[in-house]
Amino acid sequence: MNRLCSLVLLVIGLLSVLEAPAAAEPVEQWGVFDLALPGPKSGNPFVDVRVTCCFEQGDVQRDVTGFYDGDGIYRVRFMPERTGTWRYRTSSGVNELNDRTGEFDVQKPTPGNHGPVRVAHKHHFEFADGTPFRPIGTTCYAWTHQTDEMQQQTLKTLATAPFNKIRMCVFPKRYKWSTNEPPLYPFEGTPPRDWDRSRFNPAFFQALERRVLDLQKLGIEADLILFHPYDEGHWGFDRMTADDDDRYLRYIVARLAAYRNVWWSLANEWDFMKEKREADFERFGRIVQKSDPYRHLLSIHNGKEMPNHTHEWITHASIQNGSAVEDAARAVLYRDAIRKPVIYDEIKYEGDLPKRWGNLSAEELVQRFWQATIAGTYATHGETYQHPENKIWWAAGGELHGQSPARLAFLKRVLDSAPREGIEPIDKWQNSQYGGQGGRFYLVDLGKEAGRSWKFRLPKSPQADDKQLADGMRFQAEILDTWNMTITDVPGEFTLKRVSEYFWDDANDRAIELPGHPGLVLRIRRMD
Amino acid sequence: MNRLCSLVLLVIGLLSVLEAPAAAEPVEQWGVFDLALPGPKSGNPFVDVRVTCCFEQGDVQRDVTGFYDGDGIYRVRFMPERTGTWRYRTSSGVNELNDRTGEFDVQKPTPGNHGPVRVAHKHHFEFADGTPFRPIGTTCYAWTHQTDEMQQQTLKTLATAPFNKIRMCVFPKRYKWSTNEPPLYPFEGTPPRDWDRSRFNPAFFQALERRVLDLQKLGIEADLILFHPYDEGHWGFDRMTADDDDRYLRYIVARLAAYRNVWWSLANEWDFMKEKREADFERFGRIVQKSDPYRHLLSIHNGKEMPNHTHEWITHASIQNGSAVEDAARAVLYRDAIRKPVIYDEIKYEGDLPKRWGNLSAEELVQRFWQATIAGTYATHGETYQHPENKIWWAAGGELHGQSPARLAFLKRVLDSAPREGIEPIDKWQNSQYGGQGGRFYLVDLGKEAGRSWKFRLPKSPQADDKQLADGMRFQAEILDTWNMTITDVPGEFTLKRVSEYFWDDANDRAIELPGHPGLVLRIRRMD
Repeated sequence: MNRLCSLVLLVIGLLSVLEAPAAAEPVEQWGVFDLALPGPKSGNPFVDVRVTCCFEQGDVQRDVTGFYDGDGIYRVRFMPERTGTWRYRTSSGVNELNDRTGEFDVQKPTPGNHGPVRVAHKHHFEFADGTPFRPIGTTCYAWTHQTDEMQQQTLKTLATAPFNKIRMCVFPKRYKWSTNEPPLYPFEGTPPRDWDRSRFNPAFFQALERRVLDLQKLGIEADLILFHPYDEGHWGFDRMTADDDDRYLRYIVARLAAYRNVWWSLANEWDFMKEKREADFERFGRIVQKSDPYRHLLSIHNGKEMPNHTHEWITHASIQNGSAVEDAARAVLYRDAIRKPVIYDEIKYEGDLPKRWGNLSAEELVQRFWQATIAGTYATHGETYQHPENKIWWAAGGELHGQSPARLAFLKRVLDSAPREGIEPIDKWQNSQYGGQGGRFYLVDLGKEAGRSWKFRLPKSPQADDKQLADGMRFQAEILDTWNMTITDVPGEFTLKRVSEYFWDDANDRAIELPGHPGLVLRIRRMD
Repeated sequence: MNRLCSLVLLVIGLLSVLEAPAAAEPVEQWGVFDLALPGPKSGNPFVDVRVTCCFEQGDVQRDVTGFYDGDGIYRVRFMPERTGTWRYRTSSGVNELNDRTGEFDVQKPTPGNHGPVRVAHKHHFEFADGTPFRPIGTTCYAWTHQTDEMQQQTLKTLATAPFNKIRMCVFPKRYKWSTNEPPLYPFEGTPPRDWDRSRFNPAFFQALERRVLDLQKLGIEADLILFHPYDEGHWGFDRMTADDDDRYLRYIVARLAAYRNVWWSLANEWDFMKEKREADFERFGRIVQKSDPYRHLLSIHNGKEMPNHTHEWITHASIQNGSAVEDAARAVLYRDAIRKPVIYDEIKYEGDLPKRWGNLSAEELVQRFWQATIAGTYATHGETYQHPENKIWWAAGGELHGQSPARLAFLKRVLDSAPREGIEPIDKWQNSQYGGQGGRFYLVDLGKEAGRSWKFRLPKSPQADDKQLADGMRFQAEILDTWNMTITDVPGEFTLKRVSEYFWDDANDRAIELPGHPGLVLRIRRMD
């Protein structure tokens, strides 16, 4: 907290003995406290007026920047990260907005509210309350730029789909199979190109916020893509001035950072935005990081050239790679170099487009999710079946037609059984078919071939202490059919016997009988 | 150049009209000018005395730090990077070493001297004179810590081997299969542990320097490993104090930076040095970078955990990974994240040790080199055949017994035919069997299967302009047998015809007949 904020709150503290500040409705932890303040409409309120608010509870303080929401209303939105009574005081050069004080109670979160998602265990995620979060995302770049009817249909689809994260663009998208004009634009002006980029259109952002809250109710994280190249100058949102870019970033962060399910994706295919340089994105990253009091997850997504994912403002790698997740031994590699969680956010899509990035079979997409999982990374779904009206899920949302979502729901259930520390490669760079937590929990990919038998065998984790596996330890096994979505217990148990420096087999050399088709994964768990 | 250095040289410039400074023997460009100065022997000259020298030619200045070489002799070693007359002036708090001036002529380099190696074309290397450098390295960690006879044998072996880089430890190595005491130690004191680490042993470093020069004569880059974990406290060089570490680094850089064939490898398996923290290595990196006037290549090599290779002081990634180079589609991935040249410096070794890192077949090692090459990266050889006296090449040098070196010589000849910009993946993340420079030069790996025919086909490079390949372009092909080391011309020519968005075939649908065994690579070159 800056010194001014401390001082202001000290004064509040002293005054509070004398006069009780305005009390507001209680909110829940990681909910939103929305402070609406009437203020000047004249001039350009988006540029001329600045209002900030200092929130305090115990030894925690947060400086939060407000924003102009149109119609003479300024708002400060705040996400309290602790229960109890919070106090606040506003600061502004405008008298009406300055020195407004108050307090409000923050209650325990309601069921389903786990707070924002954070990085955990180096390569994984969890909610603020400690609940593991295993991303199974989907992609609907422009779903909020469709008709309201279509948006409702998308929400209906999402309500029964397995996805807990969605990648979506703030700006409208213009690209083959998705060229409609959106119902609303982010700036005042006349479509398609005559904008006053110093004046935002609050209705555009209010509509976006409603959708973010709709997603929140469904337990879905909104991975908001702040810039993208699918404009090519049509609206020009991909080639604004640096001042416009920076003002836009500060405005959207001020509006949306209080929503717990927001993630920031600085750009999609950043390197395809030929009007920008790498230094621009580094500036954007620092602006978002600095403007966001809660440090939501922040990433930047590549086309063909990766950014430097080791920048401290990047929380995790959001990767496009059309082949890395074909094979867990490939998928694991970026983790080493980036040293953060890896989400393969574009791995090609289930569909039938005449483009190689848009015509995976459902079987292959499902297989890629499992390869990513076993490698200690995450994957993201997208669907690109051709549609007579170009209502393609990947771009517009609507309905899902593919066969992968049901199988991803199955994967999700399996992950719910996994250790909270996440799935790690067991023997990094070796035996890449084994993921899990050494000594406790294993997922073993049996590959694309249709074997009839698998000899029980567990590898040592070279970095683990030597007692992680030991003779006599007992394990039970299940056969997961990743396509047919069945789980079959393997009768009996397996008792370890060391057979080499690197492996343990079953003491009785037992093997597991298999149904003889591909798409199988074994789940092996310690019994004692 | 610092301001003091400028001022000193300005004074030299003015004085030079009046008095001619001492003239020295001419040296060649990228050779070594060795200035020996008598000075005090009393106290601890390694710690008490500092001498620097400012070298100037035209608008180029270099500040070079000298070192104490024992017997009352201080030296400043300088590698001139330009021809012509250089002038110098020393600075020291010790009168005898201060204000010594002189000049010397630098002549064109003699044949075989191409200067130091630099990063070029983002993921590749070249010498200072622009000659491409394609690393084909080997590993002899402790060869300079063997008997002189054995060292001579190593040099004799290297003289006819294909290797142009060698990884070697400055400190002696103590590890299974290599536990002998070395003939010399780096510090004054009594073996194995009673050292005065503030007093270097000049004879140790002089011996090392002779070997570096021996390698230079053979055209071999000396990738000097400055720290390593294979000590475990026996001598204690892996657990010195921070002051000792830093003094050692400055001393070795002062001694050796003037040798053009030196590379700095900060550590081998840095993460296995449990007495050090990551911040120590970052400090080491900055010390070496700052101490080295010529910015030799500087890397740090991993065990199981990679450092952050994007640090600006790291010039290229020196990677251990036992499986990434099994497959070009894997090998390519680190390049994306690290954005620098990648050398796979440990890919397991050709040999028969009872460790999985030491028993590759020669065929597999050769195959891995080709996979690395086609992925736009480089690999390093090592040999670990058991030997009755534990004279294993990987540790001690001596003789080579394996079958891979001859095949690596063949690879080297093929690389000599490759474009100077290096081998790049043609269609990154797709069609990983194609490396080269799109539109001009292709190496196509035909895999481990033994086909009888290969249908001529070239893929588009998605990032390239659309005219890189076009209908009617003519190519010729050769079959490279990577094991039998033969090059067979394919009769006739191939004329492109576009068959899809991504591929061109031969206009007459020609295929190439193959001999039906694995280990084949096609070389395809543009004719017009």
